[in-house]
Amino acid sequence: MNALEFFQKSAGKWRSQRTTHHLAFRRAERGGSEILVNPLNADDPKVIEICQMHAIEPTNAIGGAYVKWDGTMAWDKDDGETHSGETVFALVPDDETGRKGKLLREVGYAEVMPVIGRYEIDDEEALVLITDYPSMSSYERFWFPAPNVRVRASTVQRFGGFSQATFCTEELISEDKVEVAASATSQPAIASVFGW
Amino acid sequence: MNALEFFQKSAGKWRSQRTTHHLAFRRAERGGSEILVNPLNADDPKVIEICQMHAIEPTNAIGGAYVKWDGTMAWDKDDGETHSGETVFALVPDDETGRKGKLLREVGYAEVMPVIGRYEIDDEEALVLITDYPSMSSYERFWFPAPNVRVRASTVQRFGGFSQATFCTEELISEDKVEVAASATSQPAIASVFGW
Repeated sequence: MNALEFFQKSAGKWRSQRTTHHLAFRRAERGGSEILVNPLNADDPKVIEICQMHAIEPTNAIGGAYVKWDGTMAWDKDDGETHSGETVFALVPDDETGRKGKLLREVGYAEVMPVIGRYEIDDEEALVLITDYPSMSSYERFWFPAPNVRVRASTVQRFGGFSQATFCTEELISEDKVEVAASATSQPAIASVFGW
Repeated sequence: MNALEFFQKSAGKWRSQRTTHHLAFRRAERGGSEILVNPLNADDPKVIEICQMHAIEPTNAIGGAYVKWDGTMAWDKDDGETHSGETVFALVPDDETGRKGKLLREVGYAEVMPVIGRYEIDDEEALVLITDYPSMSSYERFWFPAPNVRVRASTVQRFGGFSQATFCTEELISEDKVEVAASATSQPAIASVFGW
């Protein structure tokens, strides 16, 4: 399985349960969201555009994905701030297996974070994504315990020590895809590199 | 790193934050506990005894661990049922690397589950533990995002479909070890194969 195939397996609408464990505060923050994943082929105009933003030859990409999310995040309760957004990214593998390489994100309005991550499909067919920022490093691992269930675990290490872990359990509720928006906006990522 | 080295890295007293996502109920259950991990050498009497229980030649074991936990688990709130217990297990690798093999658990009083799991240190130096029961299968992955932080994610698939995912974030609070109890009791495992 290459990274594009992983996102093809992720296609559709998912109901996500999320929990973040904060070590410093010794408390948990939880939330829920709906996430739409639409894989993109290598010849998709958005994939070509993102490669060009990063000065990478678009023919090196194997595809990408458009992701949209809508949800809430709260400190130990159900009501809370709404978190929604969308993002688009392109996958540029290191070699012909497509199992590891660069994940390029769109440079959005007010984007302050670097937008290149390293991805790898590990030997258990999970997707691992590592993104280094100037003051923090993020590790995310996505896998499918069942075809209609995706789990992700991400840990964020900030300068000076480990800070938080976020866990999501996602159930496929519809395989429908959505049209890619003409322009996707970004928001600063904390729990997830992607923001969703 | 072999499996014994993984448990040596886990030695000490940990403060654990736990969240279980139940898909069928669309809700989360959370809790906290203190976990003590004491790695055991191959010549430890408990390791030898567990091998003998399973009719496995004790010299094949590379060691094991004694684990004791004390905590609470609640439906979306802080107060709840107390969960405490202890377990001992032995590691019997398939080959001289010690990176994969069998994890044998003590057959305790009122033990109804099978007590042999398969372990593997994966290519990211995480410990993966797979245990198949007659009506369910458990996958657990443990890793260290920092030397003093251990994360675990486990998914349980029951006959008929996926049911729950449990996530723990554990912070080392003391490297002190404890004496192994003369006789460890077991309790049925649900979230974690070990019970902790």
